[in-house]
Amino acid sequence: MRLPLASDIQDALNRIRPYIHRTPVLCSSQLNRNFGCDLFFKCENFQKVGAFKFRGATNAVLCLSDEEKRRGVVTHSSGNHAAALALAAAMNGVKAYIVMPETAPEVKKNAVASYGADITFCKPTLQSREETTFAIMERTGAVLIHPYDNFNVICGQGTAALELMEEKPDLDIVVAPVGGGGLMSGTSALVKGTGSSTRVIGAEPFNARDAYLSFTSGALVPSDNPRTVADGLLTSLSELTFAVIRKNVDMILTAQEETIIECMLLVWERMKIVIEPSSATVLAVIRENPSEFRGRQVGLIVSGGNVDFRKLPF
Amino acid sequence: MRLPLASDIQDALNRIRPYIHRTPVLCSSQLNRNFGCDLFFKCENFQKVGAFKFRGATNAVLCLSDEEKRRGVVTHSSGNHAAALALAAAMNGVKAYIVMPETAPEVKKNAVASYGADITFCKPTLQSREETTFAIMERTGAVLIHPYDNFNVICGQGTAALELMEEKPDLDIVVAPVGGGGLMSGTSALVKGTGSSTRVIGAEPFNARDAYLSFTSGALVPSDNPRTVADGLLTSLSELTFAVIRKNVDMILTAQEETIIECMLLVWERMKIVIEPSSATVLAVIRENPSEFRGRQVGLIVSGGNVDFRKLPF
Repeated sequence: MRLPLASDIQDALNRIRPYIHRTPVLCSSQLNRNFGCDLFFKCENFQKVGAFKFRGATNAVLCLSDEEKRRGVVTHSSGNHAAALALAAAMNGVKAYIVMPETAPEVKKNAVASYGADITFCKPTLQSREETTFAIMERTGAVLIHPYDNFNVICGQGTAALELMEEKPDLDIVVAPVGGGGLMSGTSALVKGTGSSTRVIGAEPFNARDAYLSFTSGALVPSDNPRTVADGLLTSLSELTFAVIRKNVDMILTAQEETIIECMLLVWERMKIVIEPSSATVLAVIRENPSEFRGRQVGLIVSGGNVDFRKLPF
Repeated sequence: MRLPLASDIQDALNRIRPYIHRTPVLCSSQLNRNFGCDLFFKCENFQKVGAFKFRGATNAVLCLSDEEKRRGVVTHSSGNHAAALALAAAMNGVKAYIVMPETAPEVKKNAVASYGADITFCKPTLQSREETTFAIMERTGAVLIHPYDNFNVICGQGTAALELMEEKPDLDIVVAPVGGGGLMSGTSALVKGTGSSTRVIGAEPFNARDAYLSFTSGALVPSDNPRTVADGLLTSLSELTFAVIRKNVDMILTAQEETIIECMLLVWERMKIVIEPSSATVLAVIRENPSEFRGRQVGLIVSGGNVDFRKLPF
């Protein structure tokens, strides 16, 4: 199993640069005082499709051979990866087949459809998703682009941290959220791969702490039907992302649901930017573990800003 | 009555520059397609205290004589101007007396108090506000800084448009919201005062269209107990702001409540930034009057981002 290196992530950034937004790094002196450290928010909520996922999807599409591009790409997802892959494929003239549970919100179905993807609805079970996906692969020859268990996707996700470190090379700590581990893998491989002494910390909801349990026990422990407001962090690590994280991450911290919601509201109120609960988890672990961060220069990967404004948790 | 000139606004910007944020001008290709014109959002929601009001308050404080600074400043407001004046005064070592209705939301009272202002509560009537304010002026000698009927405040508000025009000098149209008219006065005086051919359009809720009625009839028509979601636009023009607006504004357009709410949600969803309903009014008049804007380069003054997230209109 080949693990991504910093040079792979640099190559990915060179490849995807014409397609992505270089997102800003924002600060708030009010939040710095509030949290007792200097916070640098790498705002992937401003990325295309509203999430870092567009980086990994674009890198994966650009790494296909011409023959693979002709066959198209396929994935099963109800979330940001589906929209990201649909847009990345469309921008490169590649056909995208997206398998979505029939129960997915209309707004997400519409977003994916608006990028011209071919949507197939399935029952809302993992078995139905996988069977439908494999049937499409058999019929069309389309290449599966997994949302995180994929080398090129991980390298793409790491480019957010690369841009952050280009702008702020002297960070003491970088914190990113952990769901399936694609963002955390890319982030940690980049930071540690450059030989920097910056620490890398993963942030996870306590209610979906499979990465924490896996990391501390040394054996992959999948989540069992987790419930958290951070709907982007429900998935469990794969063998690949677990291997990268074990190698490169210094620590995984967890946060309670009410802290995640409080921190999301705080960022909306004070910074006037919309971040999703998964992104607020990063700030929430700082709130719950202040001594780890006090007086430090801390980079935070804000993963996205896709929120259903009619179902807010506050 | 002396009306502000572009040179007064340039002087104001030179004066306040060390104290304010130079806010970004943001774009969204999705919204450009959606609205059929090129939109440039001057984001005063990222200004200190979350609104353009900090510009005018800072300019007014800096224009005081040393003797006036020793006496302090006073205003009555339940909104952004109170917080803006409190912070502007604090940053310059000037005492601020703020008269607030006892019914003002806790969060606003706390914000003003956190800047060290001396708060006096009054009954929620205009008479009680004014009596309380005059009593403070008599007792302390503090200088009244009116939220918009004030030359230096208007010049400060115009600096947002000045920064916008520095960045995008070739705009066809600039649109700003109209409440008491301070922002609209400063914006229009700046744009027209530079001899530019850029058109200047005011945006008002149909339900609080005193500026529209005054502008079209040629006589000052105050609002009578207006009701609108755009809570920053409830106030009526003063003699001074009406005079500036008559001289410099090309047109005032109005928008319905549901369009204001729709446009606010659209900006949150697509741009991932928090804007208040008063700011969404600017986009709403473009939505309701598309032929005025089609194919144009349009600058929008986004007035602020102070929203009560627990009382959202959607």
